[in-house]
Amino acid sequence: MSLATASIAAASEPACPVAATGDGRSVALRGEIAIALSLRHAGARTLTLRYELNGRIDAPVVFVAGGISAHRHVAASEAFPESGWANDLLAAGRTLDPARVRILSFDFIGADGTLDAPIDPADQADAIAALLDALEIPCLRAFVGYSYGALVGQHLAARHPQRLERLVAVSGAHRPHPFASAWRALQRHAVALGQMQCADQQGLSLARQFAMLSYRTPEEFGERFDAPPELVNGRVRVAAEDYLDAAGAQYVARTPVNAFLRLSESIDLHRIDPASIAVPTTVVAVEGDRLVPLADLVTLVEGLGPKGHLRVLRSPYGHDAFLKETDRIDAILANALRPSGDTP
Amino acid sequence: MSLATASIAAASEPACPVAATGDGRSVALRGEIAIALSLRHAGARTLTLRYELNGRIDAPVVFVAGGISAHRHVAASEAFPESGWANDLLAAGRTLDPARVRILSFDFIGADGTLDAPIDPADQADAIAALLDALEIPCLRAFVGYSYGALVGQHLAARHPQRLERLVAVSGAHRPHPFASAWRALQRHAVALGQMQCADQQGLSLARQFAMLSYRTPEEFGERFDAPPELVNGRVRVAAEDYLDAAGAQYVARTPVNAFLRLSESIDLHRIDPASIAVPTTVVAVEGDRLVPLADLVTLVEGLGPKGHLRVLRSPYGHDAFLKETDRIDAILANALRPSGDTP
Repeated sequence: MSLATASIAAASEPACPVAATGDGRSVALRGEIAIALSLRHAGARTLTLRYELNGRIDAPVVFVAGGISAHRHVAASEAFPESGWANDLLAAGRTLDPARVRILSFDFIGADGTLDAPIDPADQADAIAALLDALEIPCLRAFVGYSYGALVGQHLAARHPQRLERLVAVSGAHRPHPFASAWRALQRHAVALGQMQCADQQGLSLARQFAMLSYRTPEEFGERFDAPPELVNGRVRVAAEDYLDAAGAQYVARTPVNAFLRLSESIDLHRIDPASIAVPTTVVAVEGDRLVPLADLVTLVEGLGPKGHLRVLRSPYGHDAFLKETDRIDAILANALRPSGDTP
Repeated sequence: MSLATASIAAASEPACPVAATGDGRSVALRGEIAIALSLRHAGARTLTLRYELNGRIDAPVVFVAGGISAHRHVAASEAFPESGWANDLLAAGRTLDPARVRILSFDFIGADGTLDAPIDPADQADAIAALLDALEIPCLRAFVGYSYGALVGQHLAARHPQRLERLVAVSGAHRPHPFASAWRALQRHAVALGQMQCADQQGLSLARQFAMLSYRTPEEFGERFDAPPELVNGRVRVAAEDYLDAAGAQYVARTPVNAFLRLSESIDLHRIDPASIAVPTTVVAVEGDRLVPLADLVTLVEGLGPKGHLRVLRSPYGHDAFLKETDRIDAILANALRPSGDTP
């Protein structure tokens, strides 16, 4: 079977039962539920989970989770036509085509800014298990997580292995790299510096701009921003500043300061024993990712033993490759989610 | 001749005349002179140059210039016993042994914080030429520049080629890389955020901490800061934060905010046509330097044509390798500064 034609909808003998009552319609719907959760660092809380389901209602369910700035709206649908954060990955003909699979996603706990407490990625996994209970979905055909979503997926596979057949973890290792943690800590300091003087938005914008440098690569900046600097009001302004300013402003407009702080911290709280991940796992590494070095993903895969498979892709988009290299990510997903029985 | 025994003091037929009147004494002295300079972006100014001379008074003179936070005190001497910024590189037995060579250095213009205007690295080169005039030093045996000092050396070699026999340019290319420029621009934004409400020092400290991440490598951080984070007052604190806080505080204590801003800008104003560099030049690249990619130094050397020689070293210290890999830098200097007639 070629990569292009592999289809998870064609799986034989799924381990997860699929509702057979559907009429084949593809619908998108949103909802929210309140759940009681025992958080690892913050104790018992009642939280609102906001989810979106998109796709054929009798199809197997795949959970998709992205980075800390992602949300429940992964892709446009008839009901919700605005563009999603991974719009092209859920299009017709893709591995995650909503005509053949049902996509579940949610807003991370903490994303609305109301939970001002340390959030462990394991808490997100417990929230997802509670969400599956509420939606009466016994089991996911797969969990596809990118960046922070990959960390959450690892905890789901360790704590609730009966809830997923397979994990695809893109650009997320078993622990944050110390250099990346330092980078994020300084972003949080930028927010704190802004907060000192009620300039929360300026602080958050600066934090986001520093984060952008960790998501992209010098290669890309070298191609896009090679113009000489300008002198503006007696100050040097370099070619990338317009782009970075715009990225900061855009982020500030849609992100509560607490959401950024607590989800950024949450990445640094991540730590898992790869051996505890109890389901078949495809680890996708991007060579040139400055946040998640290839070497750490190799260590993760080694710890997974026979359950683990590594796919490496090289991209000038570094950590953001998942969002940019749609064709190549789709091919990897096709291979990873192909019916069991084939060699992965 | 082996690297270890190469000596610039043994040079035959130097192109630069050396004062023959000395009695072989090695002395260190400091001074300052006022000069009138026509700055490229800021017009005519009278500036105070602060210099230090260290070494045998009848020996050939080598100018040493470091990064934007370096200064005229390169190494300890009897007269000035405090440690310098490249202390071990000027020790007995080294290529730059003050018993065999005379080291000249200065505080970059702008380093005292009094010049609040755009400073081109070419301005620094003109200041050095004026300093050589004032000290009646017709010509340098070599100019050894690291980081910003390498950029200044390139301009000296292009604008005043008769003032130096040879250039050694470590970790500095013919233009700043656009990604590094973006990184520095955001550091300047951190200072501006602090300045919004008289938190100049906090802003400068954050800027320095972000700069540290560009000077060092993930490799080093991975080895030093692999401990899990702690929760302090309900906030996540990662392992590298103590180190970064201390580095920021140390920098703030000795650096005027304007000095940082204007010298940081100055790096981004750098641009030179390699073909205009008119003296034999050894370019030293550090593989893994996140600010100055090896590829840019290869381009510089290609532009230099037969005048250029490339030396590549791999170091976990990245951009800071010049300050850390003393033995290897000394061996490169021995080779680069060996008497003419030997193959470089």
